[in-house]
Amino acid sequence: MTAIGTLYGVGVGPGDPELLTLKALRILREVDVVFTSAQAKSGVSLAQEIAGPHLRDETEVIPLAFDHTFEGVESGAAHRNNARAVAAVLRRPASAAFLTLGDPMTYSTFTYLLTALREVLPQVPVAVVPGITSFAAAAAAAVEPLAEGDESLCVVSAAKGTELTRRALSAADSVVVMKGFRHTDALCDLLDAEGLGQAVYLSARCSRPGAVLTRGTTEIRALPREYMSLLLARRERGPSR
Amino acid sequence: MTAIGTLYGVGVGPGDPELLTLKALRILREVDVVFTSAQAKSGVSLAQEIAGPHLRDETEVIPLAFDHTFEGVESGAAHRNNARAVAAVLRRPASAAFLTLGDPMTYSTFTYLLTALREVLPQVPVAVVPGITSFAAAAAAAVEPLAEGDESLCVVSAAKGTELTRRALSAADSVVVMKGFRHTDALCDLLDAEGLGQAVYLSARCSRPGAVLTRGTTEIRALPREYMSLLLARRERGPSR
Repeated sequence: MTAIGTLYGVGVGPGDPELLTLKALRILREVDVVFTSAQAKSGVSLAQEIAGPHLRDETEVIPLAFDHTFEGVESGAAHRNNARAVAAVLRRPASAAFLTLGDPMTYSTFTYLLTALREVLPQVPVAVVPGITSFAAAAAAAVEPLAEGDESLCVVSAAKGTELTRRALSAADSVVVMKGFRHTDALCDLLDAEGLGQAVYLSARCSRPGAVLTRGTTEIRALPREYMSLLLARRERGPSR
Repeated sequence: MTAIGTLYGVGVGPGDPELLTLKALRILREVDVVFTSAQAKSGVSLAQEIAGPHLRDETEVIPLAFDHTFEGVESGAAHRNNARAVAAVLRRPASAAFLTLGDPMTYSTFTYLLTALREVLPQVPVAVVPGITSFAAAAAAAVEPLAEGDESLCVVSAAKGTELTRRALSAADSVVVMKGFRHTDALCDLLDAEGLGQAVYLSARCSRPGAVLTRGTTEIRALPREYMSLLLARRERGPSR
């Protein structure tokens, strides 16, 4: 029986290096190896920029290549390749952290990697350090509640269009729309039709330099489309309800 | 025109003192006054326990009394009283932080206080430091995704019963049920009927000493009911979907 190192899924938050947790900081300093998700263009990920200053000099940093498509399940081959690379490190044995922007359990590449890793290394010890999500940071920047009292909050992807957003708006008081940048006009049409044209915020590059926070569909339609953006829309309830 | 101090809404995370962010830590060290939500019994809040070790000796700590009912909107008088106390401090002028467990924009007392404060001090400067939510911490502890790919995630309150949970289960792949401890049996009945009896986790006192994480409705029904608990339920999708 060979010893196997622990894999830590570490959420580094939405972008502001100050939104790292103390626990993430400690784990980053303790592990032998840090895995990052390499960007095709620069080779350096934002998560790595956030974590970098906290790593020890001797910490090994290994970039993993992912297909950053919206449909992560379709890039199974990349996940299997990466899982083998991670397994090889853990079997040295060595401890490792996989960095994710935001939170590792919330729309992150980490959970796909983990599924693939458990196929090659079923007994792998895993621990997860939660991170600040982009939508919590966006609501903080807007100083607007995500949810109060008995309101419902629904988080959806609009990568494939507006249908999930439409369904969420009928079921919840407050809706966070991720990955909607390609469908911004259609989403604005939908929000206008729901009477939420002035109740919607667009947040782009939240908590980072050049962050944009814009209220209202008219203003949002006029902005350039950005991949790392999201919409927050909330139906205000009267105090009597 | 009198100077007014800034009010910071500071999320201290779900309970583990290590889940504070670096930014929360900095703000706690910088402010003149820290407002906490006093518990009727002990007079000391969990949020204050987390933040306490990081405050300067000269930082003034002022407990505010809240009615911790589930229906925050009904405790307007408490919020107005507290808003006046906060306004008096900010007018000195002094900077102040209001501590919230989890995240200040997600089911927190802070947003009610802020609404009341803006009525007595409309020009109040406010900044919010986001925090790790209880449900992100619970998913991390369970090492279970909250959402992947184009799944929808819905967060609901079951304080008044199971109806919002029922609606969320029909609209979303993944559901977080907060404040459901009084309705645990009815929620388990609902999850069993939806075929999710083995896909549900109960998390109590997450990230704190004595934390409980239990999977499955049979096991959950057998547990004592706890105020600070939540349910995570997620419909697994096949890879072909």
